[in-house]
Amino acid sequence: MLGNFTYHNPTKLIFGEDSMNALAEELKSYGPTVQLVYGGGSIKRNGIYDQVIAALEAAGKTVVEDGGVMPNPTVEKLNEGIAIARENNVDLILAVGGGSCIDYAKGVAVSVNLPADRDPWQTYWVDFEEPTCPVVPVGAVLTMVGTGSEMNAGSVITSHEAKMKVGHVFASADVFPKFAVLNPTFTYTLPQYQMVAGIFDIMNHITEQYFSGTDDNTSDCLAEGLMRNLVAASRAAVKNPEDYEARSNIMWCATWALNTLIAMGKSTDWEVHMLGQAIGAHTDATHGMTLSAVALPYYRLIMPYGLAKFARFATAVWGVDPDGKTEEQVAAEGLDAMEAWMREIGCVMKASELGVTEDMLEGIADSTLIMQGGYHALTRDEVIKVLHQSL
Amino acid sequence: MLGNFTYHNPTKLIFGEDSMNALAEELKSYGPTVQLVYGGGSIKRNGIYDQVIAALEAAGKTVVEDGGVMPNPTVEKLNEGIAIARENNVDLILAVGGGSCIDYAKGVAVSVNLPADRDPWQTYWVDFEEPTCPVVPVGAVLTMVGTGSEMNAGSVITSHEAKMKVGHVFASADVFPKFAVLNPTFTYTLPQYQMVAGIFDIMNHITEQYFSGTDDNTSDCLAEGLMRNLVAASRAAVKNPEDYEARSNIMWCATWALNTLIAMGKSTDWEVHMLGQAIGAHTDATHGMTLSAVALPYYRLIMPYGLAKFARFATAVWGVDPDGKTEEQVAAEGLDAMEAWMREIGCVMKASELGVTEDMLEGIADSTLIMQGGYHALTRDEVIKVLHQSL
Repeated sequence: MLGNFTYHNPTKLIFGEDSMNALAEELKSYGPTVQLVYGGGSIKRNGIYDQVIAALEAAGKTVVEDGGVMPNPTVEKLNEGIAIARENNVDLILAVGGGSCIDYAKGVAVSVNLPADRDPWQTYWVDFEEPTCPVVPVGAVLTMVGTGSEMNAGSVITSHEAKMKVGHVFASADVFPKFAVLNPTFTYTLPQYQMVAGIFDIMNHITEQYFSGTDDNTSDCLAEGLMRNLVAASRAAVKNPEDYEARSNIMWCATWALNTLIAMGKSTDWEVHMLGQAIGAHTDATHGMTLSAVALPYYRLIMPYGLAKFARFATAVWGVDPDGKTEEQVAAEGLDAMEAWMREIGCVMKASELGVTEDMLEGIADSTLIMQGGYHALTRDEVIKVLHQSL
Repeated sequence: MLGNFTYHNPTKLIFGEDSMNALAEELKSYGPTVQLVYGGGSIKRNGIYDQVIAALEAAGKTVVEDGGVMPNPTVEKLNEGIAIARENNVDLILAVGGGSCIDYAKGVAVSVNLPADRDPWQTYWVDFEEPTCPVVPVGAVLTMVGTGSEMNAGSVITSHEAKMKVGHVFASADVFPKFAVLNPTFTYTLPQYQMVAGIFDIMNHITEQYFSGTDDNTSDCLAEGLMRNLVAASRAAVKNPEDYEARSNIMWCATWALNTLIAMGKSTDWEVHMLGQAIGAHTDATHGMTLSAVALPYYRLIMPYGLAKFARFATAVWGVDPDGKTEEQVAAEGLDAMEAWMREIGCVMKASELGVTEDMLEGIADSTLIMQGGYHALTRDEVIKVLHQSL
């Protein structure tokens, strides 16, 4: 049943091997000062930084550097970025990197014009307010896929003090990037571990939205199409990371997995992300691998509460033949097929590989938000059980 | 293989049973004078007109009436609408109806500010220019689904003088409706014939984009999801037109079938639309039924040129079991399954039912544009053959 919703996604996506050619022209729509956001410097080694600088120069921009964004951007770094933006009165924040850089750029963008006495972390990631001040435009050059941050209004920030990694999905259309440049070849040099983490992040974005509801929703049919495509493309990409068809399909699929479309008209779950983000806050492990470590224990626990959908997942996504089997058997075979695929592409299957130990479980459980939109809201005991089974 | 492309679809979609509640607020973003575009007056009988007027009044707008838009809007009507817009210096064109009304509204919107010596038909539907003048904003309240016009920049106009029905898909983001209100219950009162025509129009929008290319494209996977959903929902809707789940899924599916998404990164065909539009220009028959009358002869003719895709269509959309069959058999069974579905829901299967006679075929063939993006570009003889088989 499609309920009431508003879909509005104004991001302009420029996609393909030649997409960087359009960057200079795109930049001309914005004012003269650009805050250039990036991570640890890999873009300097692989030449992407030079291409971006060339486009900024061609567009006549003044560049304010803001590098060193970490994989899980912190409150401290966020406050640094806000100070840079305020000092330089920037007109555009251009993030060059993956979801961390773009999430961080959005976090800065909504905070620059907050009154000086308002704390950004408290305002947006504790109280979940919408921006009432002007939002600085954000643009993106994507070098790593998975988070979908290039076409959504989500921003995940980590507070080590609070031991919380919190995602705020803003409702305001102003928070979406104005444009994003997606060049699949930019993802070729990413280490395999990061590529696989991104792929599982994409898959989990889809399943978080898919495993809810009981009707034949358009969103679910689109989700199944994306999952089939992702499974095929990921198998090709792990064999040959420079398979353009595979990498381009993964990149495009990632965008649509989390740009609000497949959540329209239905409730969504997001419990795997809550568990994974809690692990991330305690270990600083790679996001996608925190999800892969907990996903199967979680889905096997909730399967009985959404049995028909898990059976549909098995046949529609994994091609399980339901003939002569009970719904339970079909559903279980679907999760077994997902497990086999996860092992095949190289997902981390155990939280212990990420540094999680038995004595950390209570603390991680304390950091885990309990969601209500899926087939079953976890009890505290069940959170511990899932975490325990993931060790 | 995903080539280079730009995706930018800024239309805001307000969806659901309660979506009209948002109209007055939405209207406040635009200037005081609104050109109200609608068709033959059914919206006055079913109460939608009164709801729209109430929202316009609540937003304090001056309303300029522009009713009487015909199912295939003509050049003469277009010129009338442009004159109305110019005389009243309108700030927004609000189309209340189906694709014809919205297409017409876009046609007026791109033409209002053309220099007086430029002919709109020649500029946009013969020379296919992009607007260089300011485009008047368009909003929509959708009462009939199928064309996807609520979230794309297409506009189909008919010239009886030229015996041509021509669709211009504008590239400019300015031509997309700024907003569209989609209330599935508004489609309940539509006669069954029109509902079914809309459903086949949706299906054909998808197949026109699906039957091209040879790779496992994200777009094709999304298309398969949309088709499976449409088939299921249409079967429910013909049994009970007031099945909200079915009508809402059909409405949402229609939007995504033709809002540019599933065409990204691949070539598309559109030959069925060229054949159907030629029939439309000669008979004024309902658009969707002109497509259903020619689709099967056309697809059976081109099937050998895209055999693998037709076989994939059979298994992925229609659940044809490929075991022990040749690719040709699987592909043919897919088209047979589509034919059975078309008959089940009540599509027109013969152009003769639309008033086409043997002696009209050469004239219709003269009006048929030949497309190059599908698996096979038709020869003149093949156009005649397809038309003949559709009789």
